[in-house]
Amino acid sequence: MSPFSLPSISPLTDVLRSSIRSKIDNKTKPLGSLGDLETIAMQLAEIQNTLSPELKNPKLILFAGDHGITEEPVSLYPKDVTWQMVLNFLSGGACANVFAKHSHIDVEVVDAGVDHDWENDTPRLIQRKIRKGTSNFLKSKAMSQEEAKDAILCGIELLNETKYEPTNIFLFGEMGIGNTSAASIVLSHLTDIPLRKLVGRGTGLNNNAKENKFKILSEAFQRTGKLKDPIEVLSEFGGFEIGMMAGAMIGAAAQRKTFVVDGFIATAAFAIAFALNPTVKYYAIFSHLSEEEGHTVVLEHWKIKPLLRLNLRLGEGSGALAAYPLIELSVKFLNEMASFADAGVSNSDSK
Amino acid sequence: MSPFSLPSISPLTDVLRSSIRSKIDNKTKPLGSLGDLETIAMQLAEIQNTLSPELKNPKLILFAGDHGITEEPVSLYPKDVTWQMVLNFLSGGACANVFAKHSHIDVEVVDAGVDHDWENDTPRLIQRKIRKGTSNFLKSKAMSQEEAKDAILCGIELLNETKYEPTNIFLFGEMGIGNTSAASIVLSHLTDIPLRKLVGRGTGLNNNAKENKFKILSEAFQRTGKLKDPIEVLSEFGGFEIGMMAGAMIGAAAQRKTFVVDGFIATAAFAIAFALNPTVKYYAIFSHLSEEEGHTVVLEHWKIKPLLRLNLRLGEGSGALAAYPLIELSVKFLNEMASFADAGVSNSDSK
Repeated sequence: MSPFSLPSISPLTDVLRSSIRSKIDNKTKPLGSLGDLETIAMQLAEIQNTLSPELKNPKLILFAGDHGITEEPVSLYPKDVTWQMVLNFLSGGACANVFAKHSHIDVEVVDAGVDHDWENDTPRLIQRKIRKGTSNFLKSKAMSQEEAKDAILCGIELLNETKYEPTNIFLFGEMGIGNTSAASIVLSHLTDIPLRKLVGRGTGLNNNAKENKFKILSEAFQRTGKLKDPIEVLSEFGGFEIGMMAGAMIGAAAQRKTFVVDGFIATAAFAIAFALNPTVKYYAIFSHLSEEEGHTVVLEHWKIKPLLRLNLRLGEGSGALAAYPLIELSVKFLNEMASFADAGVSNSDSK
Repeated sequence: MSPFSLPSISPLTDVLRSSIRSKIDNKTKPLGSLGDLETIAMQLAEIQNTLSPELKNPKLILFAGDHGITEEPVSLYPKDVTWQMVLNFLSGGACANVFAKHSHIDVEVVDAGVDHDWENDTPRLIQRKIRKGTSNFLKSKAMSQEEAKDAILCGIELLNETKYEPTNIFLFGEMGIGNTSAASIVLSHLTDIPLRKLVGRGTGLNNNAKENKFKILSEAFQRTGKLKDPIEVLSEFGGFEIGMMAGAMIGAAAQRKTFVVDGFIATAAFAIAFALNPTVKYYAIFSHLSEEEGHTVVLEHWKIKPLLRLNLRLGEGSGALAAYPLIELSVKFLNEMASFADAGVSNSDSK
């Protein structure tokens, strides 16, 4: 294992801010009338330090992992769905594939800790298995602190691979039966929001089952008491895919690259990354508000307004992919629209 | 002028409803987890009466018209911006062009009543000018009842043109300095929502100017008293572009074609179309919630949840265009995603 040292992340500078604002405000439209798309255009221009940002070779990276907590009744779906869906991603049949294809985005799948032995027919799977699923966090740590650090470093190192050099925007998604349970408890530790507000229906629990899930997670919460250290939180509750995604977020930001945060589980990964280095936030675009109830609570706590609210609760990067065309439009209006002067249109000043 | 008779509109049948629902529910995802995109997929399948709907040759039609009310201080921008922006649409420099190009959507511009004499260099402009701008509705009717009917019929007839046969989805947008004023007062008459709640900042009025706009519109409201008949409302307050768009909505629905409603002004056109024939609503997709305050009030009144809330307030179909990729994704998940059986993934039943 590498020593646990994280790369540094540069904050954004405001050197170009007024020039970008001026470029936006001279487009043939009322001031501010493109709303949230202007915010995204400004952020991308600042990240890329240019008046004409571009989106280059976007990649969706899906991190998959299993969760020992599925020994308890926390999910509607059997644990085998994790590896089955990995094969579905690899053969192109999942929602993530369909949405990614629409925007010409490559999909890559990483085994961060799936409880499955793959056949030899999965050459496109990126094998980074830390272990075959976490331990049941109701009874013990989900993983050792070494494994937690490994997961994060592995995410950082993945983004250093040569093949990602031409990419300047990443979308991160996940697959892991049981991972809303891990995400809820991770977020409660790292945000101080009461666990009750963060426990939701996952893939579709009814009221009784949701209440039971809350009881199980409360008991797990009591096992450790309140924690603050993100490595400790990750180690106690998992999962491998959440830790590796947190690392990838840090890796993207360290390279001054934008990343798009998907839904509730990706937000738990972000919480770990943010706890490790808050500067990571400048490189994040929050794509959507999930229907998972806790997501609203966390994003309001952080005063983050995501691009979409479509009641999605699918995961696997589907929200990030659904928001991606809006990110493209943000870049395009900035680069392609005429200015008042170009088009010979009167500005409000001229009245 | 043609006699004023409107084409009939078929309601949707529920013949295929359970088969479409079953197709959606067998996709490899938790039940209902694609949220609003499932609603759109269902609507398109029902409109097209098929389990595999398609979006064919989408067209953006922009209706432009001028408003006599701009003699009063209701807008930040001079009236000339209407024709100047028409030229910007024709030369491809406006937001509408940039967004439409992203989704391979053709842009067509209709002069419904612009106060301008065009040079001969505008061959691509669709000339349907009813008159060079409405009259100032503070002082008199915006247009005669004959003109109001003409505008609506013209919108219906436009969609009957042969060139639109291959198109099964339309996006409608508008351009007209002063048209938030017309839209506010039209909507107040047709929805019974108090005018005050429907008067907003338009292209960016400050508080004082907005209050003054409200006073002017209140006075205009008092000139006629409360009206109910949509032709009378259109005739009293305009505008030509709003009436022609209302006609185009009816024309689209009569042909069982979907149309995407843009923001506040397009919603006023929808209110006229809906008052003429409520069945039109089944063919409408509401694209976004505009930042114009009254839009929230009207959509809540009708219990409509639009796809996007991005604080856009630009008009010219920009919100419809921003939502279009989500409509594409709705169709694509329904047609392209694997089912549980296809992919060998366990359903929640199998636990």
